[in-house]
Amino acid sequence: MSNDHYLVAADPDAHVELAFCADRTRGLAGGRPWFLMEHSTSAVNWQPRNVAKRPGEMLRNSLVHVARGADAVCFFQWRASRGGAEKYHSALVPHAGTDTKVWREVVALGRVLEALAEVLGTRVEADVALLVDYPAQWAVELDSHPSVDVEGLDRAHALYRAAWDLGVTVDVVPPSVDLTPYRAVLVPTLYLLSDHDATALARYVEGGGHVLVTYFSGIVDEHDHVRLGAYPGAFRDLLGVRVEEFFPLRREESVRLDDGTAADVWTELLQPAGADVVARYVDGPLPGVPAVTRRTVRDGVAWYVGTRLDRCGTHRLVRRVLADAGVDPVREVPQGVEVVRRVGSDRAYLFVANHTAEPVDLPAVGTELVTGAPCDGSVRVGAGEVAVVRQAG
Amino acid sequence: MSNDHYLVAADPDAHVELAFCADRTRGLAGGRPWFLMEHSTSAVNWQPRNVAKRPGEMLRNSLVHVARGADAVCFFQWRASRGGAEKYHSALVPHAGTDTKVWREVVALGRVLEALAEVLGTRVEADVALLVDYPAQWAVELDSHPSVDVEGLDRAHALYRAAWDLGVTVDVVPPSVDLTPYRAVLVPTLYLLSDHDATALARYVEGGGHVLVTYFSGIVDEHDHVRLGAYPGAFRDLLGVRVEEFFPLRREESVRLDDGTAADVWTELLQPAGADVVARYVDGPLPGVPAVTRRTVRDGVAWYVGTRLDRCGTHRLVRRVLADAGVDPVREVPQGVEVVRRVGSDRAYLFVANHTAEPVDLPAVGTELVTGAPCDGSVRVGAGEVAVVRQAG
Amino acid sequence: MSNDHYLVAADPDAHVELAFCADRTRGLAGGRPWFLMEHSTSAVNWQPRNVAKRPGEMLRNSLVHVARGADAVCFFQWRASRGGAEKYHSALVPHAGTDTKVWREVVALGRVLEALAEVLGTRVEADVALLVDYPAQWAVELDSHPSVDVEGLDRAHALYRAAWDLGVTVDVVPPSVDLTPYRAVLVPTLYLLSDHDATALARYVEGGGHVLVTYFSGIVDEHDHVRLGAYPGAFRDLLGVRVEEFFPLRREESVRLDDGTAADVWTELLQPAGADVVARYVDGPLPGVPAVTRRTVRDGVAWYVGTRLDRCGTHRLVRRVLADAGVDPVREVPQGVEVVRRVGSDRAYLFVANHTAEPVDLPAVGTELVTGAPCDGSVRVGAGEVAVVRQAG
Repeated sequence: MSNDHYLVAADPDAHVELAFCADRTRGLAGGRPWFLMEHSTSAVNWQPRNVAKRPGEMLRNSLVHVARGADAVCFFQWRASRGGAEKYHSALVPHAGTDTKVWREVVALGRVLEALAEVLGTRVEADVALLVDYPAQWAVELDSHPSVDVEGLDRAHALYRAAWDLGVTVDVVPPSVDLTPYRAVLVPTLYLLSDHDATALARYVEGGGHVLVTYFSGIVDEHDHVRLGAYPGAFRDLLGVRVEEFFPLRREESVRLDDGTAADVWTELLQPAGADVVARYVDGPLPGVPAVTRRTVRDGVAWYVGTRLDRCGTHRLVRRVLADAGVDPVREVPQGVEVVRRVGSDRAYLFVANHTAEPVDLPAVGTELVTGAPCDGSVRVGAGEVAVVRQAG
Repeated sequence: MSNDHYLVAADPDAHVELAFCADRTRGLAGGRPWFLMEHSTSAVNWQPRNVAKRPGEMLRNSLVHVARGADAVCFFQWRASRGGAEKYHSALVPHAGTDTKVWREVVALGRVLEALAEVLGTRVEADVALLVDYPAQWAVELDSHPSVDVEGLDRAHALYRAAWDLGVTVDVVPPSVDLTPYRAVLVPTLYLLSDHDATALARYVEGGGHVLVTYFSGIVDEHDHVRLGAYPGAFRDLLGVRVEEFFPLRREESVRLDDGTAADVWTELLQPAGADVVARYVDGPLPGVPAVTRRTVRDGVAWYVGTRLDRCGTHRLVRRVLADAGVDPVREVPQGVEVVRRVGSDRAYLFVANHTAEPVDLPAVGTELVTGAPCDGSVRVGAGEVAVVRQAG
Repeated sequence: MSNDHYLVAADPDAHVELAFCADRTRGLAGGRPWFLMEHSTSAVNWQPRNVAKRPGEMLRNSLVHVARGADAVCFFQWRASRGGAEKYHSALVPHAGTDTKVWREVVALGRVLEALAEVLGTRVEADVALLVDYPAQWAVELDSHPSVDVEGLDRAHALYRAAWDLGVTVDVVPPSVDLTPYRAVLVPTLYLLSDHDATALARYVEGGGHVLVTYFSGIVDEHDHVRLGAYPGAFRDLLGVRVEEFFPLRREESVRLDDGTAADVWTELLQPAGADVVARYVDGPLPGVPAVTRRTVRDGVAWYVGTRLDRCGTHRLVRRVLADAGVDPVREVPQGVEVVRRVGSDRAYLFVANHTAEPVDLPAVGTELVTGAPCDGSVRVGAGEVAVVRQAG
């Protein structure tokens, strides 16, 4: 299992998208380590504006891939070519040769990876699954749907971002995996789903699991046939809601919920059928109609959100769902600091990537492998840097 | 004669566009009743954002079609399909079945139409014609023209909207119809016109008619050949103006007239040749040049406007032209309330559609057919509702 | 050698683009007079909004072409056609005939050109060259480059505009011409260049010439092969700089220099290698890195600017470079007034085009040819008008 990953320069959250892709690759690998087959030392050549990496950014990108399961870090390309379509794609050896920022950072990466050799083969631990599926993503992007603003991975990125901000590591996995190891399962707009996978999710909740489903999920079966009766077909009974009609919003239209949250793109005419109402619309086309619901199912809980909450509302809801499920963040971390653990048979490796412009101190006991320094209670991670602390397992 | 009509969700004035299309269908039917062959119970599936109809909106749409001459109200489609490209197009029976807002409103519509059976075969009365022509519309949208901002039906919708706001019912007809029954004729950017139809319009004015022509009208004959000599070729003598050169405006450029009106898109170098000047430009490329003119022709009047007046200016001008022509609004109606009469041999039917969020009371004597209630002097029409009062003919 | 020139209505500086094209045509003609084969009496028909020429604009356009070397002023088309794709392209004889602004101005132009007959065959004088090259322009617009915002003639127009504002006439020439007659050479983003031409430019500077080069110049040879080693390959030694990596900016991102100038689109990781630093970035991806450099080469000077200065910064830098090179503006002229000299064997012709809305007085001794009036020390040029003063050579 391998991945080619390139940052999208126009995306201000490109480092979170990197983490998502790494977790998705690991999910496709069944949790086993994987290969980063291609990334770049600096700019690429196929975007409108090919932004170069800042000092330290290539190393930070590389180590976040490793933190999330990569056991190899490779690049396109060895030497920047004189001619052809890819001559402005960055390389290990740039046009300007080896007396360059790029080459010095490549050499430094080699040294760091050598120091991390013992991480090889260890596994990332995660208490939360995020269900993402290629056929569902392709199907939801077909035309003649209720709204062009329902984009394939929009809610996947939104729920992932909320977990990232909370310092919670998630496995990004297809819906067919065994869900029993997880304390909570996030289901972002999983439009297409087989009855088999839908039943498995219901069993998971009945067995005590917690699940959060967003709008336009479970609508069609694996043949892209709508499940008749009220929406959201496959999840109607599990969620205890009955949606009779979609009410997409106009471009730039937004609505308010009675808990103060803002939302856009999507609303729907929903009636509870077993679920409790968590929040309702106060304006828009459906004032008074439930927007967020929660149903207790034996020991489990099934949440539903029928609209596109803004970033703040998504963050609040995911925090509440995960807290309800007893998910612990790895640790309390400052904003912009990314923390992931890889765990071996008798040791664990705490990766701390500092995406901020200030140094941070985090509690840690063990040995920091990049520098070789001991950590007697805390580790300091410089602005833009990454620390890897070997801990007792 | 029939029409398929679907609301465009992104158009805030979609209900006025519905009225325009209904009047245009009746115009093509020579004033006879027609068939609404397709419309929708709620959202369609082919727009970027397919907005659902609000409660009562489908009934209101249906009855406005009837008010403007439809003797049948049909739908696409009977039952929402499980698969295929149109599965998210609304239907009489939605995916969620018959315990739904949509189905209940369909049943209610059936009852109301039954109560209106006696309206069948009656005719809409109108004192004003609006000339719209498919060949002219197609020709004005050809490329290599002075400005892409001169769009096929732009002025047709603008003049129609002004009449709608004034409560004046118009017949939307091709230029070849007999104009003698009308008190006034509106001619929105009728780019292409045969000599025969131009002569008929001149005869109409000479016979006491009132006409309002907007810019880029009468320019080419039916072979798309420019009429040489000054513009607006076919209407130059009738209007008493001589335009030697078009001066389109830049994107987002606007000009002011000396009566305070704003305008955009189009100006032209115009000299009066028999017409009186009503308003002049005060800025832009042609300060001091006439923008609006009026020529008395025996008992008739010919108005010309050489620029694209804004909505307020268009409203003021149309009101003045219609008042000058002695056109009476059906009655004084509050803003957002639509009033149309269908007239039979011994009875008339007053349709009142209330597009506002408040109930309105209008003077009426007769029987309200939807409820069966008598009207002894006035009829109350709830927010979003439609009343149909049978009156003595 | 001839040119077809049409104003682009959406360009607020279309009159400067006209001057650039005229100078480029003269440059391709080796300085000899040339033919204006086509321009228009007023609007064209192929732009989105075809803006008509204001009174006097066609004459002013025509005489600026003459000022910059045109010995003939021709038009498309004789008579506006009744039919076909070009029927709305302006003509000598418009649809409206000869009792028109357009025709009267055409007749007036004929009289003025007759009065200028003695200008025929004279040559424009210029102390400054601007290097522009078709193969370089085509190559820089190929895809898969660092930034789509590096457009073919962007810096050519920017440097030209600065010289135009300073009243300095430039020859727009390919890099293969003999540069020795010029006091200064401007090299706007000359991406592709042969070794031969690069060497000639270096020889020119060694011989006392002054040169200003902007970013992404000298990068590839005539086969579109990158010159290895640091950028800007062909000019690295001449400029005394070493660029190891490009740092294009994001859309709408801008940076500041320590002399207060703003810039956008492009920055680069530059180290001086013989050049002095004139200005550095204070923010953006490369704070502290040099943005503008200057290298003394024997009696010559080589300037480099590694970013896209805004209009004000470009103006200041070009003024400084030209002053350094001892270039005199033809004379001090008010903003918006264009002054060019054509020189014959014993006489010179001073063209003054007033693009402003106020009359201007400029010092001049001789005879004004349009009016035939003597100038005893100054010439008055009305708003929008052009004067041509015959001076002693």
